[in-house]
Amino acid sequence: MEPGPCSRPAEPGHCVSGSAVAGSAFPASPLSAAWAEPGSRPGTVAAVLPAGGCGERMGVRTPKQFCRVLERPLISYTLQAMERVCWIKDIVVTVTGENMEAMRSIIQRYGHKRISLAEAGATRHRSIFNGLKALAEDQPDCKLTKPEVVIIHDAVRPFVEEDILLRVVLAAKEHGAAGAIRPLVSTVISPSADGHLDHSLDRAKHRASEMPQAFLFDVIYEAYQQCSDFDLEFGTECLQLALKYSHRKAKLVEGSPDLWKVTYKQDLCAAEAMIKEKISQEICVVMNTKDEEESVGHLLEEVLRKELNCINVTSTVMDHTGGDIKNFTDQCYSFIYVNVVSSDSQETRKLLSIFEESSLPLLYPVVVVLVHCFDFTFVPLAQKMESLMWIRELAKEVRERNILLSGLLLNYSQVTATCNASSKGPETLSWYVHTPAHVCTCTQTHICVQM
Amino acid sequence: MEPGPCSRPAEPGHCVSGSAVAGSAFPASPLSAAWAEPGSRPGTVAAVLPAGGCGERMGVRTPKQFCRVLERPLISYTLQAMERVCWIKDIVVTVTGENMEAMRSIIQRYGHKRISLAEAGATRHRSIFNGLKALAEDQPDCKLTKPEVVIIHDAVRPFVEEDILLRVVLAAKEHGAAGAIRPLVSTVISPSADGHLDHSLDRAKHRASEMPQAFLFDVIYEAYQQCSDFDLEFGTECLQLALKYSHRKAKLVEGSPDLWKVTYKQDLCAAEAMIKEKISQEICVVMNTKDEEESVGHLLEEVLRKELNCINVTSTVMDHTGGDIKNFTDQCYSFIYVNVVSSDSQETRKLLSIFEESSLPLLYPVVVVLVHCFDFTFVPLAQKMESLMWIRELAKEVRERNILLSGLLLNYSQVTATCNASSKGPETLSWYVHTPAHVCTCTQTHICVQM
Repeated sequence: MEPGPCSRPAEPGHCVSGSAVAGSAFPASPLSAAWAEPGSRPGTVAAVLPAGGCGERMGVRTPKQFCRVLERPLISYTLQAMERVCWIKDIVVTVTGENMEAMRSIIQRYGHKRISLAEAGATRHRSIFNGLKALAEDQPDCKLTKPEVVIIHDAVRPFVEEDILLRVVLAAKEHGAAGAIRPLVSTVISPSADGHLDHSLDRAKHRASEMPQAFLFDVIYEAYQQCSDFDLEFGTECLQLALKYSHRKAKLVEGSPDLWKVTYKQDLCAAEAMIKEKISQEICVVMNTKDEEESVGHLLEEVLRKELNCINVTSTVMDHTGGDIKNFTDQCYSFIYVNVVSSDSQETRKLLSIFEESSLPLLYPVVVVLVHCFDFTFVPLAQKMESLMWIRELAKEVRERNILLSGLLLNYSQVTATCNASSKGPETLSWYVHTPAHVCTCTQTHICVQM
Repeated sequence: MEPGPCSRPAEPGHCVSGSAVAGSAFPASPLSAAWAEPGSRPGTVAAVLPAGGCGERMGVRTPKQFCRVLERPLISYTLQAMERVCWIKDIVVTVTGENMEAMRSIIQRYGHKRISLAEAGATRHRSIFNGLKALAEDQPDCKLTKPEVVIIHDAVRPFVEEDILLRVVLAAKEHGAAGAIRPLVSTVISPSADGHLDHSLDRAKHRASEMPQAFLFDVIYEAYQQCSDFDLEFGTECLQLALKYSHRKAKLVEGSPDLWKVTYKQDLCAAEAMIKEKISQEICVVMNTKDEEESVGHLLEEVLRKELNCINVTSTVMDHTGGDIKNFTDQCYSFIYVNVVSSDSQETRKLLSIFEESSLPLLYPVVVVLVHCFDFTFVPLAQKMESLMWIRELAKEVRERNILLSGLLLNYSQVTATCNASSKGPETLSWYVHTPAHVCTCTQTHICVQM
């Protein structure tokens, strides 16, 4: 049997393109053949994300799940990662009363779907319990459908992949409970009351318990209903509750290093660097003319391909409908618009409005480098300055819509540039790195304005 | 009593400026009054850094200690952090035979001092044992002096501070053994043989054992001499060896989050971001004239101060000897050279040679933004282009010496610019971020060349 299509979201399937959030830079991993077997289907699945923590370990006032990474709150990345898995039917996020409004506006602003909010408790376990109650049919205010399996995941682990989610869900279906684990990075020790080493644990015999975890809903809900106040107050491990109160020995599933939890300030830096790397994997060169095999646009594309081995360079022509460009706006975040024929501001605005109308800049900054080609010998200074000022104003305007515009006036004489480009090869033209800080590094002498 | 001066390197003292490596962006933390007490002195101290690991967890071929961060191998940062603590007499690094030459060239290239090399063993414990043997007087090939206390630290924990080193050393002197600990980030579990949860550990009752650790030399050396082959092969914890074979219960010392171990790819990203942040804390505006209170240099300094709250902005005048600038070259890595009077290439070269002669670019990239001010109305295009080409060539030349030069030709009319700067305030001039990728973001229309 084939994996279920998106119209049946309660079953796992390979249906990335139909997932709720557009413009994902992190396509869900294809399900392996094994998961598509009829017996491997998890039934209805929901997720609970406790997000009530105060982030004291981060050393900043903002709870870590609300800290911004590339201008977007961390939790929005995690929600996006969960949403693109179309067989997760509902996602319950527990937040404290004081952050409820902020959370609502994040959901609205970034277009998150299938999210329900529940009030966080004073501890992690109480927050998860509240999330489960929102899914349980025995509760008076239950508005959702009780799932067969529930995933529990952290709001501060944004890099979770569909593959590991599915593996814990299927293991939970079989064993009642399952959780991702990782090898220990440091040896774990037990201190004595007076701050000395009592004993150290054999690193090979222990693992770090990570997220996601998954449970048959009844197994974990029953465990939470039975557990003591002491458990709710001081416990940290859901797998332990399932063992103690529902007598299910959780299946442990090896996860990847990507599952790491954003805990300290350095983790935020790492998360940002990893997201930047992922959204920098593709550059699209947009040209405003189909003519000339040897045009500056084609030369640029060729040079970029040679120079940037690990980056996928594509190109398209901006026609009157802008149709072709729309094909690129579901995964590419870096565009170079080469304007040879004219420096018509209307065309540039049209391109930018295509981006704005797509949901592309909703989730990640879209970087556009506007290249205007002039033969400097024939164009007076005043005209160049005017172009620069105009780009500057436009850049200010679109910055608010998460489009980062840079301008380049390129000294391009039809005769000499072609000749230069051929003879100098990779040295002649530009390379460009996607970043919200507007990095634009060029080896061609140019007049440049940056915002 | 005062802390010992640098001429007595065997005792702890506040002697940063005398430490071996120049240009440290990470000044050692001042010793608290308590550590300066006569009884708080650790006697002679040496350090052993095992660096024989193969970095399999990083997912790259290069062992993680040799991975580059801002073009410099990670281990060089850790050596720098140890070296600036002047009371650490010898630092023994254990590396595998195949990396011995690479390690020697790192030591030479980055001017590391007080380093001895020993051959790494097949496991971490064997490597540490080899390092200790190099310090033990009972060994035939011992060339170093046996210390009273030995620090053991990881080559991949570059952010270690003097404060924690001193705390573990003093604790080791008192208790025979001591080590830094951190709270656990994840719950630790014990799996059963068939991959299920056996039990989970109470997170509050356990800690992660981190580095640095310190020991009375005889305590740890005796432990290594007595321990079994099984310990040497499969053990991971030096504190455990000291407990088992020398019966010393190590004192546990709470460390800061900075002690984290660079283990995975995301940790390298985090390390780079943190180093960049540290070396971006100061910008020095260099002017080539003392005249005019309202000069572009002063305006720039004023605007930068207003705009960059967390960054220290200083200024100096480039005189004929370059003397003043030398005062800045022990901690500042970002310079803006404002050339108003002329665009004399000799002056620029003089400035760059001051940097080259200092050991500043040895450890971190030095970023120089060269600002040439012209009144564009009166200067012909050819002259501007010539300036840009010249800057480009110069940038290529100094790039090899780790100086990242960018050029800015600023349209600066004496009359209107002053007036603009006053009226527009922060909008008028540039802000600048230190990075080897040459980020230079400006709100002033300008002609710019970047390499």
